[in-house]
Amino acid sequence: MTLPRVLTIAGSDSGGGAGIQADLKTFQELDVFGMTVLTALTAQNTVGVHGVHEVPPAFVRAQLDAVVTDIGVDVVKTGMLSSAPLIDAVADGIAALGLDRVVVDPVCASKHGDPLLRPDAVESLRRRILPLATVVTPNLGEVEILSGVTVRTRADLRPAAEAMKALGPRWVLVKGGHLEGDDAVDLLFDGQTEVVVTAPRSETADTHGTGCTLASAIAAHLAHGEDVVTAVRSAKDYVTGAIRHGVRLGRGIGPVDHGWRRRAPA
Amino acid sequence: MTLPRVLTIAGSDSGGGAGIQADLKTFQELDVFGMTVLTALTAQNTVGVHGVHEVPPAFVRAQLDAVVTDIGVDVVKTGMLSSAPLIDAVADGIAALGLDRVVVDPVCASKHGDPLLRPDAVESLRRRILPLATVVTPNLGEVEILSGVTVRTRADLRPAAEAMKALGPRWVLVKGGHLEGDDAVDLLFDGQTEVVVTAPRSETADTHGTGCTLASAIAAHLAHGEDVVTAVRSAKDYVTGAIRHGVRLGRGIGPVDHGWRRRAPA
Repeated sequence: MTLPRVLTIAGSDSGGGAGIQADLKTFQELDVFGMTVLTALTAQNTVGVHGVHEVPPAFVRAQLDAVVTDIGVDVVKTGMLSSAPLIDAVADGIAALGLDRVVVDPVCASKHGDPLLRPDAVESLRRRILPLATVVTPNLGEVEILSGVTVRTRADLRPAAEAMKALGPRWVLVKGGHLEGDDAVDLLFDGQTEVVVTAPRSETADTHGTGCTLASAIAAHLAHGEDVVTAVRSAKDYVTGAIRHGVRLGRGIGPVDHGWRRRAPA
Repeated sequence: MTLPRVLTIAGSDSGGGAGIQADLKTFQELDVFGMTVLTALTAQNTVGVHGVHEVPPAFVRAQLDAVVTDIGVDVVKTGMLSSAPLIDAVADGIAALGLDRVVVDPVCASKHGDPLLRPDAVESLRRRILPLATVVTPNLGEVEILSGVTVRTRADLRPAAEAMKALGPRWVLVKGGHLEGDDAVDLLFDGQTEVVVTAPRSETADTHGTGCTLASAIAAHLAHGEDVVTAVRSAKDYVTGAIRHGVRLGRGIGPVDHGWRRRAPA
């Protein structure tokens, strides 16, 4: 027996709701073999991020080399990259090892608003990581930080996608979940094709880990052989269900339920 | 919706087969909410451990405080603790936070034989961690290192369990999997009751992560309300199936399949 191999390069959320924890839970539920390269650890819970320990860049590369040269990787997902030297280590490693299917979640802050990317690393993320992306999955805050475009209405999604596309990724998924409206509307764009992906909005506060989960679900579906448009739709279905069945834990923003399909079948 | 909460305090295996990766995969499959306190990162694959980065002890405690004071923890599992200062941080934290259901996998080395505990930390593990254990799950090598008892035949399992019990845990599970015989025989012992747990041995080389998986499965079953004897039997069933359905990945010792019950129903 073997499984498609998906690697997350990201930070750790001790609280289990986001980061490589959310990624591994997603990979497990979506029947791919999950591996990790840790870039940074957070002391985190549902209330916020209480500390960050960055991993030495050379050790990030050591983890990447260990995994790729022996087990191999079908699809990579990146999350919290934290600093410019860490971004350089990841970008150098992805290029040197010839990894060519990369889902980039351009993480800048936690769901609570705590910073997960140093301000002086934004330019590195833009210049070194975005051109490696098969798909990049910014939320509206990340679109603004990375491209300078402010999205206030659905009509702003297309210019935002165009500005992000100009930074070098093959596909852009602009996540419009924070816009007003009954549905959560995302725009997927490759410079020519525009695909609108909508999902019903849920009445829940327990949305910690949604961004990580969506990106890792896209990576898992790509690893199963789906094309980008299909993988994004499949991943959106998965994360929408996970949000609808959020887990009530902690005093703050609780996690989504990665096992919702098994625990609460339709 | 909520879930029982299980925390692993352990190392990271970049290759995804052991460590907190195996723990989180187990927790996900056994329907508990998994959280992590990372003690050390390894650059590891199916061939061996190619590097270790220890987390500062104060940051281990910060992760533990973040998780316990907000989300709460029903059962703790410990794995790779790496050094004496890390063991002190973990033991101090478990005591200060009043965590009283603790499954201890007394990890000394990886499946490849690479060290995961510094030689000068053995005494700390013995003196500070074993007395906190609801169940400790040594293999035969760990029994010898921790208690000085050498197990060569099944008749040696009882004296080994007695020697381990004298170090302070409530229950000892001596894992006899490396003894000769058609079955893998473990002995569970609390100073009075002796329970023999047998399982058919599998013809597979892909056994990376079995120790982590067994201990985290015991923790998950305890969190669901099972008593120790029942939880150990349930966990042994789970890991036996996971070994039987090992995943063929890498040039060395491949991982067990945590999702075997869904992927290969009996």
